Amino acid sequence: MRDTTTTVTVFTDGEASIVDDHLAAEAPVEFRLDETPIAVLMRTPGSEVPLALGFCLTEGILLSPDEFDGLEQLEEGRFRIRLSDGVTVDPEQFRRNTYTTSSCGVCGKASIDAVLIASRPLPEGPMLHAATVTEAVDALRALQPAFEVTGGLHGAAVRLADGRVLGVAEDIGRHNAVDKAIGSAATARWPIGEAMLVVSGRISFEIAQKAAVAGIPVVAGVSAASSLAVDLARDLAMTLIGFVRNDRMVVYSGTHRVSTG
Amino acid sequence: MRDTTTTVTVFTDGEASIVDDHLAAEAPVEFRLDETPIAVLMRTPGSEVPLALGFCLTEGILLSPDEFDGLEQLEEGRFRIRLSDGVTVDPEQFRRNTYTTSSCGVCGKASIDAVLIASRPLPEGPMLHAATVTEAVDALRALQPAFEVTGGLHGAAVRLADGRVLGVAEDIGRHNAVDKAIGSAATARWPIGEAMLVVSGRISFEIAQKAAVAGIPVVAGVSAASSLAVDLARDLAMTLIGFVRNDRMVVYSGTHRVSTG
Repeated sequence: MRDTTTTVTVFTDGEASIVDDHLAAEAPVEFRLDETPIAVLMRTPGSEVPLALGFCLTEGILLSPDEFDGLEQLEEGRFRIRLSDGVTVDPEQFRRNTYTTSSCGVCGKASIDAVLIASRPLPEGPMLHAATVTEAVDALRALQPAFEVTGGLHGAAVRLADGRVLGVAEDIGRHNAVDKAIGSAATARWPIGEAMLVVSGRISFEIAQKAAVAGIPVVAGVSAASSLAVDLARDLAMTLIGFVRNDRMVVYSGTHRVSTG
Repeated sequence: MRDTTTTVTVFTDGEASIVDDHLAAEAPVEFRLDETPIAVLMRTPGSEVPLALGFCLTEGILLSPDEFDGLEQLEEGRFRIRLSDGVTVDPEQFRRNTYTTSSCGVCGKASIDAVLIASRPLPEGPMLHAATVTEAVDALRALQPAFEVTGGLHGAAVRLADGRVLGVAEDIGRHNAVDKAIGSAATARWPIGEAMLVVSGRISFEIAQKAAVAGIPVVAGVSAASSLAVDLARDLAMTLIGFVRNDRMVVYSGTHRVSTG
């Protein structure tokens, strides 16, 4: 359920008319580990399994899709994450917010250090021709039917250098779109260490962090990257590319994975 | 510190060049009540006082700017909120996330009910000519110098019907921009019950919720509103207006406050 219809008043040049309009659907969802809520997200309803799996992988709660055994619906909007036999996780460890656990001040350096501890070293990853990056970002918009209708959704995709799409999602939240796309790729056991994450929105620290923790070495997007996202990418040798539009792109970090020949 | 400069590689038509680029600055900040962290926000550095005050007002932690006595910096990125004499708040009550406390399922209805409990009835508020709304949204972009440079910031403003700007802010986070703008207006003891909140980004449930809890009866924006934001606005008789562009706007709720004559 990505959109819902309602009656609205449209003013055009001072004239009011009453029409039906599409709205991007938004509703909360809660995920639990045992009895402990580990996340309440405002999200586009649907795709709860990829969202839960992607969230667990990008937040460092699970280390591999093999540890995830599915979701059990408890009631409307509330799900319990089933772990595979023998997997144990301390849910208290993942109550937000990880930043507050740093012993030094709450600064960018401490945030980056926390991600470095949570991440494994990034894989060498793909070599990408610049045209491949442009194509991937252009394709994301084409994969977003609901955006065209409601104007309110963010998109994310996980793609290989050869153009194969491992996972794609759209959601009212930037972070959720990323989690759903990564969760889809992970559900299918695709090699996300060889992939790039493509996003329609801004590349903030938390987007780069999610890619890093999930082990994706390349992030590219339509829009800008933040200073802290760039700092993190450089510390991790992640390839971070913004403002991919027409035949231009800005590579903030990890230029060694991008070729133009 | 809204932007920072770094060296990046720009690919244009397959040619690589190394240039200086501006990045939107991003860094975490933690706010405490006594010794308890009540929020860690990824935000554009600066304007910590309006951000803290706005956050407290829009999250229902404080009921009036009179209860706020300022900020005390503990270390880099960490601040303690000083309350006015005689004001007491139980910080445990405001540990996230309020949605999880609902006894029914985690559904849109429960989210709206939680806001209805946290909000006082909205004031009658201003009567707005449609042209005033258009002007307010157009003006927001003009008030956003950093956006032009970095492409990475959201803007928010609190304005009266006569065009006076009570507070304006930009931030890498949509929610923070709203909190800073509301906090600025509140610091100056402006009558926000007579104002409209104008935002550059999407009007999600949480944006409408912040306006509602702060007692602002009108929200207008450049972009779309979500289904749950519209549901909340209708339950509160809040005026909610999206897609304000040129001479067109979509009024989702509270049309009685908008005139065209």
